[in-house]
Amino acid sequence: MNAPAASNIKPALLEALQALVGNRVTTSESDRAQHGRDESRHPAHLPDAVCRALSTEEVSAIVRLCNAHDTPVVAYGAGSSLEGALIPVKGGVSLDLTGMNQILSVRAEDLDATVQAGVTRKTLNAHLRDTGLFFPIDPGADATIGGMAATRASGTNAVRYGTMRENVVSLTVVLADGRVIRTRSRAKKSSAGYDLTGLFVGQEGTLGIITEVTVRLYGIPEVMAAAICAFPSVEAAVDTVIQTIQMGLPISRVELLDDNAILAVNGYSKLGLPVTPTLFFEFAGSQSAVEEQAAIVEELAKGEGATNWKWSTDADERAKLWQARHDIHWAIRALRPGAKGFGTDVCVPISALADVIRAVRQDTSQRTFGTTLVGHVGDGNFHLGMQIDPDDPDEWKQANEINDRMVRHAISLGGTCTGEHGVGIGKMKFMREEHGEAVDVMHMIKAALDPKGILNPGKVLPA
Amino acid sequence: MNAPAASNIKPALLEALQALVGNRVTTSESDRAQHGRDESRHPAHLPDAVCRALSTEEVSAIVRLCNAHDTPVVAYGAGSSLEGALIPVKGGVSLDLTGMNQILSVRAEDLDATVQAGVTRKTLNAHLRDTGLFFPIDPGADATIGGMAATRASGTNAVRYGTMRENVVSLTVVLADGRVIRTRSRAKKSSAGYDLTGLFVGQEGTLGIITEVTVRLYGIPEVMAAAICAFPSVEAAVDTVIQTIQMGLPISRVELLDDNAILAVNGYSKLGLPVTPTLFFEFAGSQSAVEEQAAIVEELAKGEGATNWKWSTDADERAKLWQARHDIHWAIRALRPGAKGFGTDVCVPISALADVIRAVRQDTSQRTFGTTLVGHVGDGNFHLGMQIDPDDPDEWKQANEINDRMVRHAISLGGTCTGEHGVGIGKMKFMREEHGEAVDVMHMIKAALDPKGILNPGKVLPA
Repeated sequence: MNAPAASNIKPALLEALQALVGNRVTTSESDRAQHGRDESRHPAHLPDAVCRALSTEEVSAIVRLCNAHDTPVVAYGAGSSLEGALIPVKGGVSLDLTGMNQILSVRAEDLDATVQAGVTRKTLNAHLRDTGLFFPIDPGADATIGGMAATRASGTNAVRYGTMRENVVSLTVVLADGRVIRTRSRAKKSSAGYDLTGLFVGQEGTLGIITEVTVRLYGIPEVMAAAICAFPSVEAAVDTVIQTIQMGLPISRVELLDDNAILAVNGYSKLGLPVTPTLFFEFAGSQSAVEEQAAIVEELAKGEGATNWKWSTDADERAKLWQARHDIHWAIRALRPGAKGFGTDVCVPISALADVIRAVRQDTSQRTFGTTLVGHVGDGNFHLGMQIDPDDPDEWKQANEINDRMVRHAISLGGTCTGEHGVGIGKMKFMREEHGEAVDVMHMIKAALDPKGILNPGKVLPA
Repeated sequence: MNAPAASNIKPALLEALQALVGNRVTTSESDRAQHGRDESRHPAHLPDAVCRALSTEEVSAIVRLCNAHDTPVVAYGAGSSLEGALIPVKGGVSLDLTGMNQILSVRAEDLDATVQAGVTRKTLNAHLRDTGLFFPIDPGADATIGGMAATRASGTNAVRYGTMRENVVSLTVVLADGRVIRTRSRAKKSSAGYDLTGLFVGQEGTLGIITEVTVRLYGIPEVMAAAICAFPSVEAAVDTVIQTIQMGLPISRVELLDDNAILAVNGYSKLGLPVTPTLFFEFAGSQSAVEEQAAIVEELAKGEGATNWKWSTDADERAKLWQARHDIHWAIRALRPGAKGFGTDVCVPISALADVIRAVRQDTSQRTFGTTLVGHVGDGNFHLGMQIDPDDPDEWKQANEINDRMVRHAISLGGTCTGEHGVGIGKMKFMREEHGEAVDVMHMIKAALDPKGILNPGKVLPA
């Protein structure tokens, strides 16, 4: 972390912001430090001020002022970014939206809800509890819905419900010049012009500040069941998943933990699982549909040499079966106390998944630091976690090189440098490689919508 | 239709195009007439030339020439647009892509296929026959995949499989200056930058020419079943659908025909169906899942006063049950021989569907022309068809006013002016009303990507 720097906020801007929001704008070092870091490996950088907004109108006024003063503005939610998306690398104002935490409407008949950007997914789901509905996107952290939309987040439920791309109906967005737009109607489908919802989902605050989000809701399934199953190899596990997906079985979740990850969880949670690649399944639907799905998957798994198939529809037993998956983040941390986690996030066509995993496991097999592999394998997305000594430049170098090789391998097989974490700082260097001249189109859009470049500068698009 | 006009193609451009594609560029009146009209009510307008391209490279070279000569270029596929999207209202070159009809690759493991833009959906599905996979989007016409992507098309299967928005993985696009981009990798999900796939799906050729499309494929369901069911009112039918959707039942299709539509089909196909609002269902999945779904829907329907529930899993019987739905287009045409069809296409949140339908049925009840209502009701989308005497200006005026009132009602309830037909010519006047200042963002993007305005001018965005 850099040494805290003095605030370079322009006095006229600070004065105008104070006139607007009173003491909800601050240049205190502790506030700035809190808003200068995220959950990633990227070095912190302090904003010059933190400004807390409570409404779309305030966001509009704040952004308009920042634009007039050529001052960067970076939206801040739960602070859970894994690629530095919220770190104000060029200083400026960190625009804290956590006070925008109102659930504006839930329309059960239409299966949608509109929330302010600072509402977290758990808050929304707690609010929905009595409706029989839920919002499925689960990136792990209790992220804000606004942040999840900005990052095009997903997680373990994406194999069934899709990502934020498929689950954001409409957005309210403040543009760089302070104008406020709504990206779309609430109709379930529309052919009325350019897909602005799609454009602002995943733009990481570089084209506009998302202030309200309308999301899709789903009925809570009648029955849920969990299963786990040990495989002789990663290939066997992946082949089981390919067949499951190809049959169109609507599984809710399917997660892979490699043998290193199982080892980590066994140590942390005293589970005694066989140390071999393991799939964790979740099934949902009617009782008979769940049983039918599970029976088919069990047969597919056994055809691939799987052993130790265990399943349950009982809530407590389900939790036990999935305990290894739930504990994995803590188990990985416990592998090497004091280490810094270096997360990765490639996603490939599922036909290439076993190849990429095999290559990266080989690449990491002789390292001084521990590595674990956890995958949202139904989507071809996985995370290699590396536990690095933060003071050892050689380990950092090795980890960076492993990540580079893995990303380039994934791109060469039709994959992407980031399945769900976003580009932020860490993936900018791969954008040209992945997208070629399409990056120029992104630059054209950026220049058209944010000509002064005040919105989250230094992110997403390579210079 | 206007009287055929002489071609105003610039001689230097014509010469350059001839040098490029030989006799695949033509200014013959018959070719131009064929490329100047679609399936909509909008008056034809002839292009100055028709140019047939066989590859992305040719499209790039042609568009580059048109750009250099400030000449409009409008992509042409199956000619099945219902809103005038392909009519070259400012003349220029109609770029015929029907010769780009190669299926480039089918990757069964990854459940995707890449095709040239001129491949039709039926051609793709015929090609897939032996793979056990299919491409579900069905807009009725045997449209090209490129045209369907450009229009963000959908149809009867959208309630289960989504629209082209959800089913296009990636596009190859020629920009206004001739540059060629690929919008995205083939990974199932990605957070790597702006969603250019989403931006080019639904842009109707105003931001770029789509030359290749990678689409999602699905496993053909094991069992399919059809059901039909008569309801005492549109509200009762819609309530049944709302409950079905809210329970998360993965029905394949659910279509509403109102009493006028049933009357038309009874007359045309001698079916003797009860003249009352009727729902047509399709279920798909395993035998037990299909039976379970059908039983639940039957119960819901009976709770809403439905009678006459009929269902079958036999292919011939299924076809018979759905015959009324399949025959509706011909039945409507037969209602009034010589009439011009005036199609409409609003889509509303499903909670507003019964309201909007009630209002429009009241609005049309005393007209001199026949009207029928057919709805993709699980998505809140329906088409009111009006059979107009093409030589009666008063009927045109009435039909236009009915459409205007219906669209405004839909927009006021959170809906859209077009669920699946696109903006084309006919819906431009509603864009500001539906999107407000967001239209300015669309204009900013258009100006950035097509500064000379050569791509399908006079469409989508109101002046």
